[in-house]
Amino acid sequence: MTDDDESRRTTVLRASRLEAFSDGVFAIAITLLVLEISVPEGSEEDLLAAVLDQWPSYLAYVISFATVGAIWLAHSVVTEYLHHVDRWFVRINLLLLLLVSFLPFPTRLLAESVDSSEAASVATTVYGLTLLGAGLVLSALWRHAVRSHLVHEETADAELEVLTGKLTPGLAGYLGMIVLGLFFPLVAVFGYLLIAVFYLVPFRPLRGRT
Amino acid sequence: MTDDDESRRTTVLRASRLEAFSDGVFAIAITLLVLEISVPEGSEEDLLAAVLDQWPSYLAYVISFATVGAIWLAHSVVTEYLHHVDRWFVRINLLLLLLVSFLPFPTRLLAESVDSSEAASVATTVYGLTLLGAGLVLSALWRHAVRSHLVHEETADAELEVLTGKLTPGLAGYLGMIVLGLFFPLVAVFGYLLIAVFYLVPFRPLRGRT
Amino acid sequence: MTDDDESRRTTVLRASRLEAFSDGVFAIAITLLVLEISVPEGSEEDLLAAVLDQWPSYLAYVISFATVGAIWLAHSVVTEYLHHVDRWFVRINLLLLLLVSFLPFPTRLLAESVDSSEAASVATTVYGLTLLGAGLVLSALWRHAVRSHLVHEETADAELEVLTGKLTPGLAGYLGMIVLGLFFPLVAVFGYLLIAVFYLVPFRPLRGRT
Amino acid sequence: MTDDDESRRTTVLRASRLEAFSDGVFAIAITLLVLEISVPEGSEEDLLAAVLDQWPSYLAYVISFATVGAIWLAHSVVTEYLHHVDRWFVRINLLLLLLVSFLPFPTRLLAESVDSSEAASVATTVYGLTLLGAGLVLSALWRHAVRSHLVHEETADAELEVLTGKLTPGLAGYLGMIVLGLFFPLVAVFGYLLIAVFYLVPFRPLRGRT
Repeated sequence: MTDDDESRRTTVLRASRLEAFSDGVFAIAITLLVLEISVPEGSEEDLLAAVLDQWPSYLAYVISFATVGAIWLAHSVVTEYLHHVDRWFVRINLLLLLLVSFLPFPTRLLAESVDSSEAASVATTVYGLTLLGAGLVLSALWRHAVRSHLVHEETADAELEVLTGKLTPGLAGYLGMIVLGLFFPLVAVFGYLLIAVFYLVPFRPLRGRT
Repeated sequence: MTDDDESRRTTVLRASRLEAFSDGVFAIAITLLVLEISVPEGSEEDLLAAVLDQWPSYLAYVISFATVGAIWLAHSVVTEYLHHVDRWFVRINLLLLLLVSFLPFPTRLLAESVDSSEAASVATTVYGLTLLGAGLVLSALWRHAVRSHLVHEETADAELEVLTGKLTPGLAGYLGMIVLGLFFPLVAVFGYLLIAVFYLVPFRPLRGRT
Repeated sequence: MTDDDESRRTTVLRASRLEAFSDGVFAIAITLLVLEISVPEGSEEDLLAAVLDQWPSYLAYVISFATVGAIWLAHSVVTEYLHHVDRWFVRINLLLLLLVSFLPFPTRLLAESVDSSEAASVATTVYGLTLLGAGLVLSALWRHAVRSHLVHEETADAELEVLTGKLTPGLAGYLGMIVLGLFFPLVAVFGYLLIAVFYLVPFRPLRGRT
Repeated sequence: MTDDDESRRTTVLRASRLEAFSDGVFAIAITLLVLEISVPEGSEEDLLAAVLDQWPSYLAYVISFATVGAIWLAHSVVTEYLHHVDRWFVRINLLLLLLVSFLPFPTRLLAESVDSSEAASVATTVYGLTLLGAGLVLSALWRHAVRSHLVHEETADAELEVLTGKLTPGLAGYLGMIVLGLFFPLVAVFGYLLIAVFYLVPFRPLRGRT
C-alpha cells in the first residue's frame, strides 16, 4: 500500500526528523537503564555492604550504557553520510530502535543472574543475542544506505569501505562471546564490555584539529 | 478565550516545535514499552524456561512497538505536507499523543492476560479500542489539515487523496479485530500485529532513488 | 559567580536549546503519567470489572495530560514571542520544569485516594498546589520576558497584554478549586479538568487560515 | 579502529546532534527523579502525615533536580562556545551522561536513608561521589575543548579562563561535603543543595538586556 506518493515523500523525508526520533529513543533507552538498579531492601544496618554487593547491577549498567553509546555514535556517523533517507532506511532504522529499546530487559536479566551459575549462561546468551541483533541491523542499515545511493555522491568509495569494515569486527566478537558465554558467562560479560570499549575508545593518539 | 492574538501566533507556530514535542512523546512511549517486560521472579533454577514462558510479553512488545512506529511514520508523512499548523491541529495532535502515551497500559494488560481465556478478551478489546482511537484521531488530524488548507498549496489533489485513502483501511481492520477479539482473543492479537506490519512494510519492490 | 561572561553567553543562548530541553521534559513528564496506571492484580477472573474500577486512574491521567499539554502549549506561545533569553529566564524556566516533572507524583496520589473521603482532600490539595505553582511560575516567566524586553521589539503592547491576561484566570480557578477541594474533593478534581479544557479548547469557531 | 575517516567525520559531526542527544538524556534523567517518590502505602487514614513524612524524598528530588539543571546549564554554556566537536569530546560527553543518568539511583538511596543515622553517611557519600565525578568530567570536557581548539577562535583567552575558573569551586565544595558527610550526613545533604543553588542563582542584580 506504500506507493509512489509515499515513496516521494519518504525520500524527501528530512533525515532530521528520523535523527530526532532516533536520538530520543537512544537517549531514553540509555537513561532507563538506571531503573534496573534497585535500592537494596532492608539493608539499613549495613548499607555499604548492600550497595557494594550490587556490583553486577553497576557492571551491567556500564556495559549497556557503553554499548548504546557506541551504537548511537555509529548511528550518528552513518546519518552524517546521508544525502537523504528512503522508505527502507526508515524501516530498518525502526528495527534497530526496537532492539536498542529492548536492551534494558536483558540488562536487568544479566544484573540479577550474573552471580548464579545456572541462570547466568541463559542471561548472557539473551544479552549477547540482543547485542548481535542490534549489530547486524546497524550493519544492514549502513549497507542499505550505500547500496541504494543514499550517501552523498562525492563520498569516496574507499571512505565507504572503511566504515563498512569497521562495523563488522564487533559482530564476530559478539558471536564469539555468545558461544563462550554458554560455558563461562562471566568471561562473556567482560567480553561485551571490551567490545563496547573497543568501539568507543579512539586508539590513535589525538592529533588535534584536522 | 483563545483569540485573534493566539490564533495568529499558533498559525505562526513553527511546525518544528510541534514535531519536536511529538517526536519526544512517540520516542518515550515506544521505549517505555520495555518496562512492561519483567524479569521472572524466583526463576534462577530454570531461567530459560521462565524467559521463554514470557512470550506474551515479547509479542505485546513487538506489536505495540510496530504500531507506535507506524503511527510515528504516518505522523511524519502528514507533517511533511504541512505548510503551517493552526490551533485545532495542535489540539488534535495532543489527543493523538494522549492515546499513544496510554498504549503502554493496554500493552501490559495484554501481556499479562493473553494466556488466560476469560481475561484475554477484555484485554484485547481494551487494546483494540486504544489502537482504533489512535487511528481515528490520526485520520482526523490529516483530514483537518487538508480541509483547513494547512498543506502546501502546490500539492496535487490526487496526492492528498492517496494519503487519505491509505489512512482508512487500518481503521476497518481494527474494527474487525475488536469484534473478532471478543471470541478469539489470540487471533485478534496476531491481527493487530498484521495491521502494524501492513502499515510498515512497503510492498512494492525497492526502486532505489526516485 | 555568574558574571559578565556568562551573562553575554546566556543572552546569546539560543532559545532553541532551551526549547529542546523543555520539550524533552514536557514530553517525558506527560508520557510518564501512564506508569501511574497499574494493571489490577489478581483480577483475571473479572478483568473487566477490575479495569472499570480503576476509573480514578484514567481520570487523573486525562487531567494531568491535559494540564501538561496546556502548559506546553502556553510555553510554546511564550517562547514564540522571544527575541532571546536571559539568565533569569533560563532559571525561572527550570523552576517551571521542576513543577511539571513533579506532577506524576500528585497524579498518582490523586488516583489512589480519590475514592477515599479522608485522603481525597489531602490528595486534591497537593495536586491543586502543584498546578497553582506551575501556573504562577509560567505567569512569572512571561511577565519577566515582557519586563526585561526579551520579546521581539515589533510586538504591539496590546498583543502582550492579551497574553498576560490570558495566563491569569486559570490561577484564580486553581485557587478556588484548592479551597473547594478541602470540602468537596471530587468537585475540585472535575474543576481541574475543566480548567485544563478551558485552556485547551479554542472557543471561537475555526475561521480557517488567517 | 577509529581512523582518519571517522576522525574527519566526527570532526564534522554537527554539535547539534550531540546537543540533541545530550538534551534528551538530561531531560530524561531530570524527569525520572520523580519516580523515586513513592506514594506512601497503607496511609489512607492520615495521608497528610504520610505525605509530610516523606520530606527526605522531596529534598532529594529538589537537590538532584537543581544539580542536573545546573549541569545542563553549564553544558549548554560550554557547547555554546564550540566551533566543532572532535572524537574525544564526544566520548568525554558520553561519560558525563553516564554519571548524570546514574544520579536517580543515589537520589533514591539518599531519600530512603537520610533519616537513618548509619545508612545516611553511606548514602550521602555515594551521592557526593557521583556529583564530584560529574563535576570532574564536566570540567575535563571544557578543558579538552579549550586545549584542542574546539572553541570559536575569536573567543578571548580571558573569557575562557573565567569559565574554567567557574567550573572549579564546585569541585572543592563537593570534596568538602563528601568528607563532612561521613560524620554529619544531613549537613552534607544541605551542602549539596547549596552548591546547586550557588551554580543556579545569578548573584549580580539583573541589568536587563546587554
